[in-house]
Amino acid sequence: MKRATVQITAPTAAAKPAADLAALPVSALLQEIYDRYENHLEGKLADYIPELAKVDRKKFGISIVTADGFVYGVGDSEFEFSVQSISKPIVYGLALADRGRERVLRKIGVEPSGDPFNSITFDEKNNRPFNPMVNAGAIVSTSLVKGVSAADRFQRILNTFERFVGRKLSVDENIHKSESATGHRNRAIAYLELNSGMIEGNVEEHLDLYFRQCAILVTARDLAVMAATLANGGINTVTGERALPAEHVRDVLSVMNTCGMYDYAGGWQFSIGLPAKSGVGGGIMAVLPGRLGIGVFSPLLDTVGNSERGVRVCEDISRYCRVHLLDYRAGNQTAIRRSYRGNEVRSKRIRRDSDSRALDEIGGQIVVYELQGDLAFPEAEAVTRRVMQDAESGNFFVLDFERLFRVDSVALKLIRDLGGLLKARGKELVIAGYKFGLSPGVDVSLPVELNADGVLERLEDIVLSRAGHSIGEEVEPIDIPDLDIVSVLSKEQIAKLSKLLPPRQFKKGERIIRQGDPADSLFFITRGRVDVRVPIKGRAESHRVSTIEAGKAFGELALFEGGPRTADVFAASDVEVLVLDKIEFVSFGKNEPEIYRALMIAVGKSLADRLRRANQEIRVLAQ
Amino acid sequence: MKRATVQITAPTAAAKPAADLAALPVSALLQEIYDRYENHLEGKLADYIPELAKVDRKKFGISIVTADGFVYGVGDSEFEFSVQSISKPIVYGLALADRGRERVLRKIGVEPSGDPFNSITFDEKNNRPFNPMVNAGAIVSTSLVKGVSAADRFQRILNTFERFVGRKLSVDENIHKSESATGHRNRAIAYLELNSGMIEGNVEEHLDLYFRQCAILVTARDLAVMAATLANGGINTVTGERALPAEHVRDVLSVMNTCGMYDYAGGWQFSIGLPAKSGVGGGIMAVLPGRLGIGVFSPLLDTVGNSERGVRVCEDISRYCRVHLLDYRAGNQTAIRRSYRGNEVRSKRIRRDSDSRALDEIGGQIVVYELQGDLAFPEAEAVTRRVMQDAESGNFFVLDFERLFRVDSVALKLIRDLGGLLKARGKELVIAGYKFGLSPGVDVSLPVELNADGVLERLEDIVLSRAGHSIGEEVEPIDIPDLDIVSVLSKEQIAKLSKLLPPRQFKKGERIIRQGDPADSLFFITRGRVDVRVPIKGRAESHRVSTIEAGKAFGELALFEGGPRTADVFAASDVEVLVLDKIEFVSFGKNEPEIYRALMIAVGKSLADRLRRANQEIRVLAQ
Repeated sequence: MKRATVQITAPTAAAKPAADLAALPVSALLQEIYDRYENHLEGKLADYIPELAKVDRKKFGISIVTADGFVYGVGDSEFEFSVQSISKPIVYGLALADRGRERVLRKIGVEPSGDPFNSITFDEKNNRPFNPMVNAGAIVSTSLVKGVSAADRFQRILNTFERFVGRKLSVDENIHKSESATGHRNRAIAYLELNSGMIEGNVEEHLDLYFRQCAILVTARDLAVMAATLANGGINTVTGERALPAEHVRDVLSVMNTCGMYDYAGGWQFSIGLPAKSGVGGGIMAVLPGRLGIGVFSPLLDTVGNSERGVRVCEDISRYCRVHLLDYRAGNQTAIRRSYRGNEVRSKRIRRDSDSRALDEIGGQIVVYELQGDLAFPEAEAVTRRVMQDAESGNFFVLDFERLFRVDSVALKLIRDLGGLLKARGKELVIAGYKFGLSPGVDVSLPVELNADGVLERLEDIVLSRAGHSIGEEVEPIDIPDLDIVSVLSKEQIAKLSKLLPPRQFKKGERIIRQGDPADSLFFITRGRVDVRVPIKGRAESHRVSTIEAGKAFGELALFEGGPRTADVFAASDVEVLVLDKIEFVSFGKNEPEIYRALMIAVGKSLADRLRRANQEIRVLAQ
Repeated sequence: MKRATVQITAPTAAAKPAADLAALPVSALLQEIYDRYENHLEGKLADYIPELAKVDRKKFGISIVTADGFVYGVGDSEFEFSVQSISKPIVYGLALADRGRERVLRKIGVEPSGDPFNSITFDEKNNRPFNPMVNAGAIVSTSLVKGVSAADRFQRILNTFERFVGRKLSVDENIHKSESATGHRNRAIAYLELNSGMIEGNVEEHLDLYFRQCAILVTARDLAVMAATLANGGINTVTGERALPAEHVRDVLSVMNTCGMYDYAGGWQFSIGLPAKSGVGGGIMAVLPGRLGIGVFSPLLDTVGNSERGVRVCEDISRYCRVHLLDYRAGNQTAIRRSYRGNEVRSKRIRRDSDSRALDEIGGQIVVYELQGDLAFPEAEAVTRRVMQDAESGNFFVLDFERLFRVDSVALKLIRDLGGLLKARGKELVIAGYKFGLSPGVDVSLPVELNADGVLERLEDIVLSRAGHSIGEEVEPIDIPDLDIVSVLSKEQIAKLSKLLPPRQFKKGERIIRQGDPADSLFFITRGRVDVRVPIKGRAESHRVSTIEAGKAFGELALFEGGPRTADVFAASDVEVLVLDKIEFVSFGKNEPEIYRALMIAVGKSLADRLRRANQEIRVLAQ
């Protein structure tokens, strides 16, 4: 058995793949299917024009393209053949884009006719062809393509195909001439359509365009990319270019679904269940919406005119890979990735002990829901229900949009209504991490672009403030005895220690500690707040680890570890700090062992406290 | 305008919902749609039997049931009417279950006929009705239902319906009698089928069953539950009972999709795009696979025999909620929830400093991928590709199945192949958190039921062991100078401290520290390991916070904080510890301030170190 070469093409957009991607499991699977039918040479070549009957009957190629633009190919997946009827959905899409949905739907029906593809019967009641996948309908589609001249119109058709496949295409002139010379039945259909007003303009020009579009040369890989483009809402997954306006994709897929496979449409939907189109050139393209595109080429046709091996390959892929549209799937998926409360996970703001303890008590009234994936109707319904079930037990309900890929307008409406319901109960809905173009239209008090941590920080402020705590700018400068760590000392001890603590001021934005400098002192914040930041390789902006506020200390590791500072610290507002020099403190400690001991214990206790909180957060986040 | 009552029924399985769930956003949306068509009284009642013409033409109800069994209803959603043709897919499903797919497909085709529902034409070539949604096909379906008597057969049909809707159902005997007395055309169809061998047995019995199944009384809510049952792979989402074997669901949905809406099948698929079935009783059920079921009742029919308002309601729901099967969706969803390496996130094992530092260097060869949602072909394809892209940079690749809802067999095959590919490169694939019934069939060295943390712990051991570290049972008892914290002291200092450290032994499973007891001592582990555990309210099994091994200390917070112990500690193996009493240590410290200071600093440093690691983990996990 001759083994076909597996061809793997990397997406242009993705990172350079490792060389051995050629051995991916899906390549092996395609190879298996290829091997199964390599010698299955049933069916016969199309022979209504001599060019089609001349094709090598053994040619056979399969390609799959993923939603992120990865191309699998096996066999003759780069062999060119004429696209034929597979041009119909593409040109139908172009007609929709050129003339608008309403006009096109008036001109071409969407009912499967039950008649052969070249039928000369029409939907008499509505004076139009039954659907755009029979020749009669496809000719009307082509007649609707705009352009200032025949050449211009064809260039627009060709450009559309090129956007769909992501490469330059050409026309087989011999096939075009043959089709044109022998297409008497299509000519009859077109003239009948002209006669009954279904098409307008120069009928010979329309016919020539139609014959020409059928003679465009494509490969199985091209068909898979076309299919993946349709699967991807009209954007070519390999090139990233839009080939069809998003609003027309569903209609194109719908007519492929009901009428794409000639007289096998019902059986195809039953057993394969993917919108598809075949052509007498031997190609089939099939679409798994949102997921992937399939292209197959084998020129031997079955009795209804579909590629014999193409249908079998699609059957095997559908059954084996379980990609039938109506296969059970995703029933339990939820848009809520995880949920936590403000007493379980804290913002990056490190607060005074009194505030922090208060949040242990009252932080639970903040509930954060991290959303993921797509937020369409079913997911949004479940979210609204979940939040309303929790409504009694909280006051602030944060929906974190950061990890959502797509949000439907109906989902936003449900979220908006949810906001209203919560408001009527004196509760508040908050949106976080919203990065979609349009305003969410939800009446919320915080900026929707804030990430969940930022929202949490502000809500902690609100919750604390409502409970009578002073917050942020309201906080008076802290006296030494009120500093969290120092507060364990007696009045006399504090008086002695104070002499060791020279004050320093920093303007907002000034650097207080530089990563890598020796850790030689501890800082007590008496006014304002500081940001702890870590530089990230290859990024200009450093990462904010935490914000520490007045009353707390930073750089305390200096007391335990020598070595370099592990982060930068910047003044996040105008700041006043008291500086405790490590060497001075150690020698001070020799005379005042009690003070030394008490302070070391207080710093240790604060570390222990933060470690316990951090471990709790890890437990929540790891869920 | 009379406002309809919104009825919300809680799922029996779910927790008691809050009372104000009646005001959920989706209820409001259904109410809007209801209001829009409340006075839309076009169409006419079915009148081929007098009973149908007597129904109150104003009756109108809408219901939606979710994949988790939540029932929305508006208007007359609990009003009973005869199911009529909506019985066809249900009985087709029963026939598939009774006779097997192959036999049923031989007896009834799956091609839309293009003929009216009561057509007396057949697929002559295959000597069978075109599909099970026309009367000719439905009668064959009924003829295939098994049973020892007519009564038994009908009971089986009725029971199937009852499992689909989750309540007892009855038959309208007047409708049944009327249909039977006037169903001459159906009788003719059945006798023709008998004549040509399409059905066997007692034709009058089959016909009577058929008329009777059409006269079963259901509500819009029942239809929505039936549809949700189909959406949910054949399991009733409200009761949890199976109504149809999973393997036949797709086939039932397929024929509904192509042939369910009489002559409007093509237009319905184009504009609404949900598998559906209507009946002349005025009902429509529509299915969004995996997601939800819709039931509508309004007895006024349009010209092709579908409920006039029913079609409009479904159109509005499909367009507004964007639930058309071919609407673009989920294109970017990924099964990989997050990924981290063994140097970023550690297992719960707290290791000696030397091992821990080693993992900072070599832990990166362990790569964990947390999977989520469903693992079908497209998701599995992406996973295999991602892992192969990372293959060069790691040695152990852990797929965490814990958060997966469903795994397809093709996905397991791809994962299996991935394991083979990695093995061929001297790398290893590991499955974690596998809780599906069947063996994954993947050749892995660790038990697949272990959770990701357990797997990580074992892989850390393997990685350390390969790098020449002694692990677990191999570790010799630790001498005092080799204890991580003590190692900062000089020989003389250690000799002095040793006198303070009486050894104690614990048998595997013994409790060493009890949560709530006063924290009065620190323990150094010289042999074995201990588990830190926190009791969880309402659970017999406590939660393991961490496992600490020989060389490390525990209970160190005693040195900084007084107060009660915050967790239990148990011997995870036979254990030997050295105990440092806090009070003794403090008084010792008065004479040996240097030792005291050095030890306090070492403990503080170890806390600082763990805090830094914990914060890094939080950053990784919060992604």
